[in-house]
Order: sequence, then C-alpha cells, then structure tokens
Amino acid sequence: MAVGLHAPDVLAPVAGIALGSASLGLRAETRDDLLLMEFAAGTRCAAMFTRNAFRAAPVQVAREHLQATRPRALLINAGNANAGTGLRGIADAEECCAIAAELLGCRAQAVLPFSTGVIGEPLAVERFRAALPAAHAALGKDRWLAAARAIMTTDTVPKGISASFDVGGTACTLTGIAKGSGMIRPDLATLLTFVATDAALGQELLDGALREAVADSFNRITVDGDTSTNDPCVLLATGASGARTIMSRSDPGYAGFAAALAAVTEGLAQAIVRDAEGATKFVAIEVTGGRDPAECREVAYTVAHSPLVKTALYASDANWGRILAAVGRAGIDGLDVGGVRILLNGVCIVEGGSRAASYSEEAGTRAMAEQEIRVTIDLGRGAGQALVWTCDLSHQYVTINAEYRS
Amino acid sequence: MAVGLHAPDVLAPVAGIALGSASLGLRAETRDDLLLMEFAAGTRCAAMFTRNAFRAAPVQVAREHLQATRPRALLINAGNANAGTGLRGIADAEECCAIAAELLGCRAQAVLPFSTGVIGEPLAVERFRAALPAAHAALGKDRWLAAARAIMTTDTVPKGISASFDVGGTACTLTGIAKGSGMIRPDLATLLTFVATDAALGQELLDGALREAVADSFNRITVDGDTSTNDPCVLLATGASGARTIMSRSDPGYAGFAAALAAVTEGLAQAIVRDAEGATKFVAIEVTGGRDPAECREVAYTVAHSPLVKTALYASDANWGRILAAVGRAGIDGLDVGGVRILLNGVCIVEGGSRAASYSEEAGTRAMAEQEIRVTIDLGRGAGQALVWTCDLSHQYVTINAEYRS
Repeated sequence: MAVGLHAPDVLAPVAGIALGSASLGLRAETRDDLLLMEFAAGTRCAAMFTRNAFRAAPVQVAREHLQATRPRALLINAGNANAGTGLRGIADAEECCAIAAELLGCRAQAVLPFSTGVIGEPLAVERFRAALPAAHAALGKDRWLAAARAIMTTDTVPKGISASFDVGGTACTLTGIAKGSGMIRPDLATLLTFVATDAALGQELLDGALREAVADSFNRITVDGDTSTNDPCVLLATGASGARTIMSRSDPGYAGFAAALAAVTEGLAQAIVRDAEGATKFVAIEVTGGRDPAECREVAYTVAHSPLVKTALYASDANWGRILAAVGRAGIDGLDVGGVRILLNGVCIVEGGSRAASYSEEAGTRAMAEQEIRVTIDLGRGAGQALVWTCDLSHQYVTINAEYRS
Repeated sequence: MAVGLHAPDVLAPVAGIALGSASLGLRAETRDDLLLMEFAAGTRCAAMFTRNAFRAAPVQVAREHLQATRPRALLINAGNANAGTGLRGIADAEECCAIAAELLGCRAQAVLPFSTGVIGEPLAVERFRAALPAAHAALGKDRWLAAARAIMTTDTVPKGISASFDVGGTACTLTGIAKGSGMIRPDLATLLTFVATDAALGQELLDGALREAVADSFNRITVDGDTSTNDPCVLLATGASGARTIMSRSDPGYAGFAAALAAVTEGLAQAIVRDAEGATKFVAIEVTGGRDPAECREVAYTVAHSPLVKTALYASDANWGRILAAVGRAGIDGLDVGGVRILLNGVCIVEGGSRAASYSEEAGTRAMAEQEIRVTIDLGRGAGQALVWTCDLSHQYVTINAEYRS
C-alpha cells in the first residue's frame, strides 16, 4: 500500500544504544509491540512533545521524568495509547517505568515512557511485568529494524533511516525510527520518533538542532488534520563514538551532524506520509509568492486538508477548481485570485484565476496519474514560501478508521 | 440515503412569485437543470454571498446587478458552476441574463444569475438560449417543488419548506428551497438558497432578518469544511399578500415573519446536512461552558471537521478518545481537559478528562447506533454556547467525490 516506500534493508547500530523488543499481545498476537531502548551513561536527550491540550499519561510522565534526572532508557509500547485514562493512567505509566528500571538498575525517573494505540483503555500493567524481562534479555546493538517493527500501529512498513558523518576525523552514526500513519498533523502528529547518534553535543545545541529539524520535517506533514495526544520526538546523543563534543554551530563537525539529522528526520516524515492510512499518492504542496511564510503555510495546509482536493487526488482527477476554491477560502487577507498560478507536476493548470490557456485535459490527467504529485501554488504577491507533504483520501482511509477498534 | 429526510409533499405558492424550469442537459439528460424565477414589481431582495476569495462569475455579476437596480428575476442553473472561467465567465453570465431579460421584458441588470456544479468549464450559453423560452413558458405560481428539483446537484432529495404567519390579520406565506450536499461550510457553503415571502418589509429590516437567520442556520452547518465559490442566500419579499409593510422589529407582524424565516432556514440547513454527500448520520455538536461563544464554535467546528471523529461516527463506534483529542487540539487558550464532560445522546462518556465512571461500552454503542446523534461537550469554564450540525464521513462520500466529474 505504501507509496514508493520499502522497509529499510539495514539500519546502522549507534554506539551506546541497545534495543530489545518483546510481545505484550496488545497490538497483535503475532508480533512484538514492546520496545526497551537503553543508552549509555552520559547520553544527552532532547525531546519535543505534542501540543494537544489533551496529553496522554505517558507524555505527562515523560516530561516530569525529563525534569527530574538525565534519562537512561525509553520504554515504548504500541496498541494502547494510555490516553484519557486519568490518574490511573499516570500511575500505570509510572509503574511500568519502575519495572523497567529494576531490570536496568537505574532510577524509575530515568525511564521515559511512550505509548501509542487506542485511546481510553486502561494499560495492562501486568503484561508489561510479564514481557519486560524478555525485552531486557533481548537488548542488543543491532536490533534497530526489529525496534522499528515493534512500534508500528496501522503502519504497513517499518520506518528507519541511518546516516553517517564525521566529527574531527571520527566517524559518527545517526539512526532514527518512526511510526505513524493516522492522526497526523503538526504539532506533533501521531508519530513516535526516536533518533540517536553516537556523536556528543552540548545540551542547548542538541535542543536547538531538534527544534529546527522537526520544523522542516514532522511539522511539515499532514494526513487528516487530527493532532495526536501522544507524540514525542526524541533525539539522543550518546557520545560513545569517542568524537569530541560539538559545543557550537561554528564547530566544523556541526554541519555534518545537522545534515545527517535533517536527512533522517525529513526521510522519516516523508515515510510516514507515504505509508499514511489508505494513501495511494504522495503529495508535496509547495506555495510560493506569498507575502510571508505564514500565509504560504496557511494556504498549503488548507489545500492539504481539503477533503475535496484529497478525493480528487485519489481519483487522479485534475479538478483544479477544488484546489483554487481551497486557496480562496484560506482566509488570506486581500488575496487576488486573478494573480494565482497552479501547477501539477510542472503542468500549468491555472493562470489568472482560471484554466491556463496552454492547459489540456490530457496533460492534467497524465500529471495526476503519477503516484508522486507536486502541487505548486504561486500566490504572485511576494517572496514567502512553504512546503507541506500530504496524501490523498481514499476508501481505504475510511475503512481503516471505521474499523480501527473492531 | 438521506438521514430522516423526505421530499416535501407540497410547497405553498407565494403571491408575486412565478417559477419555470427547463432542461439544459448540463446536469443530467433526464431532468430539468435550469430555473427561472420571476417576481412582481416592487419586490425587495436581500442577498448574502460566499466569502471565498475565489468567487464564481455569476456571484460577481449578481452582486453588481444588485447594486445597479432592483431585481425582477433569478436565473439559476445546476451542472456547471461557471467558476474559474475568468472574463469569459463574466461575459457568459451577462449574456444569459440578457437572454432572460428579453423574454421577461426587463433590464438585463434586473436578472441575478446563479450557477452550481463543476468548476472550471465554460458555460454553454447556446443551451441557455435554446432552453430559456421553455422555462419562461412554464412560469407558474405552483412550481416550487419542480424548482427545488431543478437546482439539485448531488442532492438525493429536493429540499423545500413552507411556513405561514399573520401580519395585521392578513395571512402571509414564506417558502424556501435549497440545494447542496458537498463543499459545505460557512461562509457560505455550497448551497443555493432562495426564500420568498408575500409579506412586505423595509429593506434594512429585510437585510438584517436574513443576516440573523443565516447565522443560526446556514452558518451553523459543515459537511467537509470546504467553502464554496458560488453560494448565495436570497430572500425576497414581494408584498403581494396585500398586508401592510413591516417597517420595524417592534411591529407586531415582525415576530411572526422572523419565526417563519427561522423555521424555514433552519429546516433547509438541516436538510442539507441530512442529505450531505454519503451521510448516514445527522450529528448535532453542542458545546457549552466555554468562556465565550467564539471558543465554543471553534471547538464545535474542530470536532465537526475531524476525519477521525467522522469515521468513528460512520462506524457507530463510541471512540470518545477521538472527540477528546479534537477538543484538545482546537487551540483553546488554557483549556483544562480535566474539566471537560462529553455526552453522546445524553450518555455521559467522558468526565474529568477520562472515561466516565458510569460509562459502559454497551450504553455508548447503543447511543451511537442511532441515526441522529447529539454530541454535547461541556468545557466547564464559562457560560458560552455554540451549536453546529454535521454528518459522518462514509465510503460513499469518497466515492461521490472521487467520481464527481467522471
């Protein structure tokens, strides 16, 4: 089902990170749905969380734990979001952390919990107690692909990317995994993302790097406009490569690290859209010529969220009127639709607010038949730009979400 | 397919209004898709139009004509929206008005054109020239139901309502027709609405009455969040009942008129949602306890637009977590989800930010099995209220919109 996306052949181990998975039987009987990720002492951690006012218990607990001490492990499960579970949900998340901490020999607060899945069901803590020893026993450095599989929910393909870079002559690795296919929208969407490097960075630098990378990747995608209750994006820097610590942006090692982080987060963000629920097309919406980036983003998201545009994309129907109608309702102050140009994969379909003179239905249909569509919307009134990745709206999306709990 | 909605048995004629329909062959070969509506000299007209920046040619022409002279007729077609058609679209709309005006013996500017249907196709003016004489010959006072049929697009049921009231002992009638089933959202949605009364009202009073009625009816509905390019809501007062002119709100006749107008516009707005593309449920979303009506509306529309909530409604799945997640992402400043209560048809499902203690899956499932669902969301922090009507998101919605042009 996924659009131009395959499971990674191999993911590079990151020195200082060990991963182990096991089965809770929450998401499926037949595959692992619990992941334990342990990291070396001294590892620095940057994290961003969903901005939904309704935050799941594990998100609340993880934020508190991060304030209290430097983390040593992540505990992640798929199948149950432990969201909308009130005080009991908090207590359950805390107890799971305590069980993992005992196995790892660290403080419970050094474990950050993350959950994804159905909202509103109590977490079966006894299953964690039963399965965690197996996950702990399985801890190994080369288990990234299995880890990517263990955190999947409605994903059809495990998602992971590795990149390498150099800091002062020492080779460093950066590997990330993510899951997510519905309830996708900034900030952040229903995705779990865990990225680790064996480079060493100062804390502020790490925090800033994550913020910038997320802005250009996970905050640039939307599937259905629904923001999740559970989403973290975590970036770990173990320093176990032995490379010197990067302390500033002017350090010659920083550019390589930042490029690797950008490549991995952008690739993972695109992978999430390519494997979005029911997606049959990968769609880039590029808005240019706005007065500022903010109005370009507004137009891009309005088009990306329009069910009429999304169903037309699904039908490979070059129904440019729906795109123009969405641009028109984006609430852009004083927009002159007569100045708008729209291109589909380079074919100009709208010019001066109506069908381009050069346009033919055949050319439009040919462009829309592609699995990868770039919609370019030029507002013709400035130098602002924005780029958003999304997908179409198919029968399969409705089926998946109508049957999710059954 | 329509939820609890049947075609009206009869619509009451309105003195001073004559209607005639004919076939252009644009929307379908087998039914009328052109409507001519002529009204008596002295008729007052109030009109509201879509706020989409991308306005169809007929909307632009109708607004100009309204500025120029008092209208004597409406000319409406289904099957082609004459939108995104540039200067040619304007000229085409003007020409159709001129053809109608010649038949009616009035100025071209006294004809207001309205179009609905596919965006971006040029209007076949020669078909108007051929069909308008038949529509003119058919003009009659008792053709309201046929008129309601002629303006349908993807509607499955013609929509019309009549009401009666009394002005100083003279019986008056108010009849309205509407069409619309996709691209529905304020302001205004893809709907055409034409309401007429034989009462007489001052112009300012008529304008104000229409604004208020639309706020509580057509601006309270959403199907897919897409605002149309073509929508008018027109209110005509012919004065042909012979009743005295209502000049102020304190006139004893005003209350009866306003109640009739409210009943007809609310009923038509609900009918549009009941017959929305693919709808299997009629859903009222009532938000109470907000700091002001604006934040209640924001929450109501966020829930109403959530594809995850809409697919859960389609599946009759009491997936309250999706509702709570949508409330959480509505961007309400300082919202404490712990204070939120949610009820489904009176069954309390969420209290204190998690599943209500009294809730059982059976009760939730029973509530969701109904065709008519009321979602009540109490924000627990003030006295603001809002009410929005919407529907679910079904396979059929995708089918209709993926196949619209084929």
